[in-house]
Amino acid sequence: MKTFAVVLSGCGVYDGSEIGEAMMTLLAIEEAGCAYVMFAPDKPQLRVMNHLDGTGMSETRNVLTESARIARGNVKPLVQYDPGQFDGLVFPGGFGAATNLCDFAVKGADMTVDAQVADAVAATRKAGKPLAAMCIAPVILGKLIEGVKVTVGHDKDTDEALRRMGAEPQDVFGPEVVHDARNNVFTTPCYMLPDATLATVAACCRKLVAEMLK
Amino acid sequence: MKTFAVVLSGCGVYDGSEIGEAMMTLLAIEEAGCAYVMFAPDKPQLRVMNHLDGTGMSETRNVLTESARIARGNVKPLVQYDPGQFDGLVFPGGFGAATNLCDFAVKGADMTVDAQVADAVAATRKAGKPLAAMCIAPVILGKLIEGVKVTVGHDKDTDEALRRMGAEPQDVFGPEVVHDARNNVFTTPCYMLPDATLATVAACCRKLVAEMLK
Repeated sequence: MKTFAVVLSGCGVYDGSEIGEAMMTLLAIEEAGCAYVMFAPDKPQLRVMNHLDGTGMSETRNVLTESARIARGNVKPLVQYDPGQFDGLVFPGGFGAATNLCDFAVKGADMTVDAQVADAVAATRKAGKPLAAMCIAPVILGKLIEGVKVTVGHDKDTDEALRRMGAEPQDVFGPEVVHDARNNVFTTPCYMLPDATLATVAACCRKLVAEMLK
Repeated sequence: MKTFAVVLSGCGVYDGSEIGEAMMTLLAIEEAGCAYVMFAPDKPQLRVMNHLDGTGMSETRNVLTESARIARGNVKPLVQYDPGQFDGLVFPGGFGAATNLCDFAVKGADMTVDAQVADAVAATRKAGKPLAAMCIAPVILGKLIEGVKVTVGHDKDTDEALRRMGAEPQDVFGPEVVHDARNNVFTTPCYMLPDATLATVAACCRKLVAEMLK
């Protein structure tokens, strides 16, 4: 049985993992007859957002602890990730991917990637295993892999930032997967599609997993 | 197009809505060609749990505000629920259903139901619309509807509490739906099944929605 590592970044679209993308990823992996293990960095979130009104909250929450809400407790510190035990590394989206796994939401193309995330990506590449990312999370791979082909749907500003990083953004307009065969990277837009519904996200995740299994 | 009202109770299995059950409910409704609107009571959670280690946290969080994480902001105060605008009222599970929507987790069969939840259930019954609940949430209907037939899987302690409330627990051992036709009530066990996976939960939710649409 193939097993995928899924990297969470908190719990909630505006400061953590997009919950629908995370859950549809897990469902797609399970429906494909595969298993998953969840990971998240053990560090404070960059911010805590009130998801009702979009304002910032004067609280501190931990990325790993909040990710455990999605994982029903079954999430490991990202530092424990070993690519030798997995058949691929998957990054769901949500602002957490752009604030906790890297700081794209704050610095755009001048962003830096969290050191543990960068290590996990590098180790996965070295092991020859596939990488996957959805929604805004492909910016992480765009920063780390020179010339990588990724999609963030067809968002002009994010495309431009990706080009500045040296990546090659690929526009898609539906639940499609962009496969960069040279770099063994799979990306899909999910909620970066302006009219995406949960069923769109589910379709993106199913195609992503199917492509990774080919 | 039929539209269902979905009542959330926070965000995370140990102090709010079980995230998988909530998301699989939304996906099942969407896949059936129907729409949904989410509601939650605007009040403090009974407790905040660290989902990584299962301990209580000395924090206060609001049920509506945390439910907005699941809803991407699109959740309304439960007091605004009007059954005339909907084709059914659905309660996903999670400890939030047993701590924020009622206090079953603390008081067992001697529990009381949150007043807004009780009003919503009464108004739904008066309007002749169906009620649905999953996982532990059927205890709410068990308390409010004399002699109702509901399932919580085959958990002996919860079955016994339901009997003490005057309900008639029905044991099921897989992703099945119990339909009490006299009371227009549909229940399904989801994570009350000891070996449930996310795919099990998805199957429960799809059957629940299909039965409600018959």
